[in-house]
Amino acid sequence: MALKAIKQGARNDIGIAAVKTLLGARFGERFQTGDAVRAQHAHTTTYIPAQLPDAVVFPENAVEVSEIVKIASAHRVPLIAFGAGSSLEGHINAPHGGISVDMSRMNRVIEVNPEDLDCTVEPGVTREELNTFLRDTGLFFPIDPGANASIGGMASTRASGTNAVRYGTMRENVLAVTAVVAGGREIRTGHRARKSSSGYDLTRLFVGAEGTLGIITSITLRLNGIPEVISGGVCPFRTVADACNAVILTIQSGIPVARIELLDALQMKACNVYSGLSYEETPTLFVEFHGSAESVALQSRHFAEIASEFGSKGFVWTTKPEERARLWKARHNAYWAQKSLKPGAAILATDVCVPISRLADCVAATHEDIAANALIAPIVGHVGDGNFHVGVVFDDKDADDVERVEAFIERLNSRALAMDGTCTGEHGIGQGKMPFLETELGEAVDLMRQIKHALDPDNIFNPGKIFARA
Amino acid sequence: MALKAIKQGARNDIGIAAVKTLLGARFGERFQTGDAVRAQHAHTTTYIPAQLPDAVVFPENAVEVSEIVKIASAHRVPLIAFGAGSSLEGHINAPHGGISVDMSRMNRVIEVNPEDLDCTVEPGVTREELNTFLRDTGLFFPIDPGANASIGGMASTRASGTNAVRYGTMRENVLAVTAVVAGGREIRTGHRARKSSSGYDLTRLFVGAEGTLGIITSITLRLNGIPEVISGGVCPFRTVADACNAVILTIQSGIPVARIELLDALQMKACNVYSGLSYEETPTLFVEFHGSAESVALQSRHFAEIASEFGSKGFVWTTKPEERARLWKARHNAYWAQKSLKPGAAILATDVCVPISRLADCVAATHEDIAANALIAPIVGHVGDGNFHVGVVFDDKDADDVERVEAFIERLNSRALAMDGTCTGEHGIGQGKMPFLETELGEAVDLMRQIKHALDPDNIFNPGKIFARA
Repeated sequence: MALKAIKQGARNDIGIAAVKTLLGARFGERFQTGDAVRAQHAHTTTYIPAQLPDAVVFPENAVEVSEIVKIASAHRVPLIAFGAGSSLEGHINAPHGGISVDMSRMNRVIEVNPEDLDCTVEPGVTREELNTFLRDTGLFFPIDPGANASIGGMASTRASGTNAVRYGTMRENVLAVTAVVAGGREIRTGHRARKSSSGYDLTRLFVGAEGTLGIITSITLRLNGIPEVISGGVCPFRTVADACNAVILTIQSGIPVARIELLDALQMKACNVYSGLSYEETPTLFVEFHGSAESVALQSRHFAEIASEFGSKGFVWTTKPEERARLWKARHNAYWAQKSLKPGAAILATDVCVPISRLADCVAATHEDIAANALIAPIVGHVGDGNFHVGVVFDDKDADDVERVEAFIERLNSRALAMDGTCTGEHGIGQGKMPFLETELGEAVDLMRQIKHALDPDNIFNPGKIFARA
Repeated sequence: MALKAIKQGARNDIGIAAVKTLLGARFGERFQTGDAVRAQHAHTTTYIPAQLPDAVVFPENAVEVSEIVKIASAHRVPLIAFGAGSSLEGHINAPHGGISVDMSRMNRVIEVNPEDLDCTVEPGVTREELNTFLRDTGLFFPIDPGANASIGGMASTRASGTNAVRYGTMRENVLAVTAVVAGGREIRTGHRARKSSSGYDLTRLFVGAEGTLGIITSITLRLNGIPEVISGGVCPFRTVADACNAVILTIQSGIPVARIELLDALQMKACNVYSGLSYEETPTLFVEFHGSAESVALQSRHFAEIASEFGSKGFVWTTKPEERARLWKARHNAYWAQKSLKPGAAILATDVCVPISRLADCVAATHEDIAANALIAPIVGHVGDGNFHVGVVFDDKDADDVERVEAFIERLNSRALAMDGTCTGEHGIGQGKMPFLETELGEAVDLMRQIKHALDPDNIFNPGKIFARA
């Protein structure tokens, strides 16, 4: 299972020393080796143990990234691109040591083309920064993974989140990237046309490559018009199955729901306690509709009819921003609410994704598993996509507890794969999901490895991620 | 330019003879070497000269495809996967000789999952066959490139067409493929989850690879509910710029238009003559809206307001099927109408795609170019995506005419690339666009070549396509 797979790898100490000397001379204050800064750049947000890089460098433009790649390449030293550090599966750990390349100073919005609904940004721009920048244009970037992640990191993990059911994931919303690849060359994978049949889809190859094929230096993104009106509501159900069936019919009916999130009974309880709310503690859908006033009214009414078909009473929707804010507060604080279930505990946040017809079964079986093993593990899902998260609340200092949780995670992944699903809908493989990737895609992983070897012959780009073996 | 790039390549005659013997013994009647069948499997639909394969084999399942690949691999003989033969850039020519692998007998719909809005089909199923099969489920597969292409071919060229502005292209609508790759192994690139962050996006790599990385043996597709109501209308404008600006505002306003097609004045004239209609011979948008009765009424009214802002008079819309059918007849017969402009002439159907803000400029400059060079070349565009087609009507027996047309195509592609566009929005590279790919993506094409070499070390999968050099 996950944790067992995470080993400290072989280190090229001589190369690392040489690269530290060279980068230190070249980047001065923008090259740091202190323990604190190194610890900040190792894995901090999850259950996965931290593996610190040897140093951190802060490039300011693609030419500098290219210089760093050339130096690292000459000495075969790992480079780990770092965005905001909010990934969840150990993506930014340094199992073979090496240099963390912190992209936070490459945080310019390079251009916005309002007529084309696109923009080009450097990878260190965070999604909140981008949306703040865009506010006056009437446009927004819809992908919202929760954390204020960097756009480069979101591209690299193929992130999505609550809005994906309507607006797609990073896969659909990245039009092109530039990246510094092996040898230090900067390549461009596409231009600004909305579609193209021009050769292999390198854009989609870099999206989700987790920094293993090069370092992204700019990203061209699709944007959307800020909806004229947003309506939202909370809709309690008797069972997870009823809630899931309402979701299936909503999607099948072609209602362009913008968000449709499931919170299970335990999560609702945690949210009530944490946020001082008084929602019914039963499986609940949080929904949001975007469009004109007429359109959101139509969508909301249509959804209400569907929800009542599946026994939900009391779906109310509102377009008032303050009421919507209160409504989504509970959802947005889900992680902190989980934490409050057992003060001082660790949380293992994991995700799987299944075809939506299997969602109710998968969640039900997972609930049984949680109960049978006396785990505390609320479930929150981007259910329009069949994607759900389990937040396992546990004591990471207790070996028995860790073992129980690891066994649970193995069963959760096996269950999702047996239902024609995937071991990760949006978090990525990193270190935590490496064994499950092999189970999921078998010999196809050989093709991925062949691509990795072809494009990164020196194995300097984020080694020890995605692939359980080289 | 295009035609100059198309050369007969080196042939491995000894290997080809050996493979013919082996496949003949193994496949009997399902292995054919007659001139007529070979000619049917070379390029027939375009201006590109035919280059016949040495033989055609008709596998019936993935195991047989694997056998074919192993035999071809052992003797380093090219395999050219063949769907319906409707591609436009020489994709199915055999510049190095070799074996056409006709997938038409692999035409089963393997499964349909109505609740998940997906299905899995063999590559030889055509899009019309699939939609006929789906009719009773209330679902449809929206991608419509015009021709009754095979799903395998559509995946391989990353096809799209009139509905892409709403439903996306093959890139967005293929959930996973299985493919027989080098060595004869069948791999699976994904499962049925709507989204996944599980390793490199091999699905998107095979979509648009034009058969150069392996032979697709099944495709899992997203489906959509058949719209409750469809409304459509025809909307004349004074200028291409007015029509394009109406499109931009429609897209920006978030109106989920299902089709929005531009026909220029010459194309309207040709359609009137060919289909016996009496539309105004002026730049015209054909639009279609999908949804509930209320929703399409809303969309149609909203669009009509936008059109009138840009000076269009007389936009009328209808939900009556027979009226819609008449309305779209002109659009669907655009190619034949083009043909009628100069009986006996050839047509070079080409496509480029630009950001929509540049579309009016690109079409205007192309119109000037057409006029200055006395060409007959109507323009039809999937303008919601910035994608347009020029149908150059010319005499392919007249060397001067051919030269003029080739020079025009070069300028057209340069113009699109200078506007941050792509040399092909939906036709693919094949042989015809090879030089423009290099201009468009520069050193990124080296990465594509590295991937090609890594995944197809014997260079047996559709060699001589996409890449102007190995």
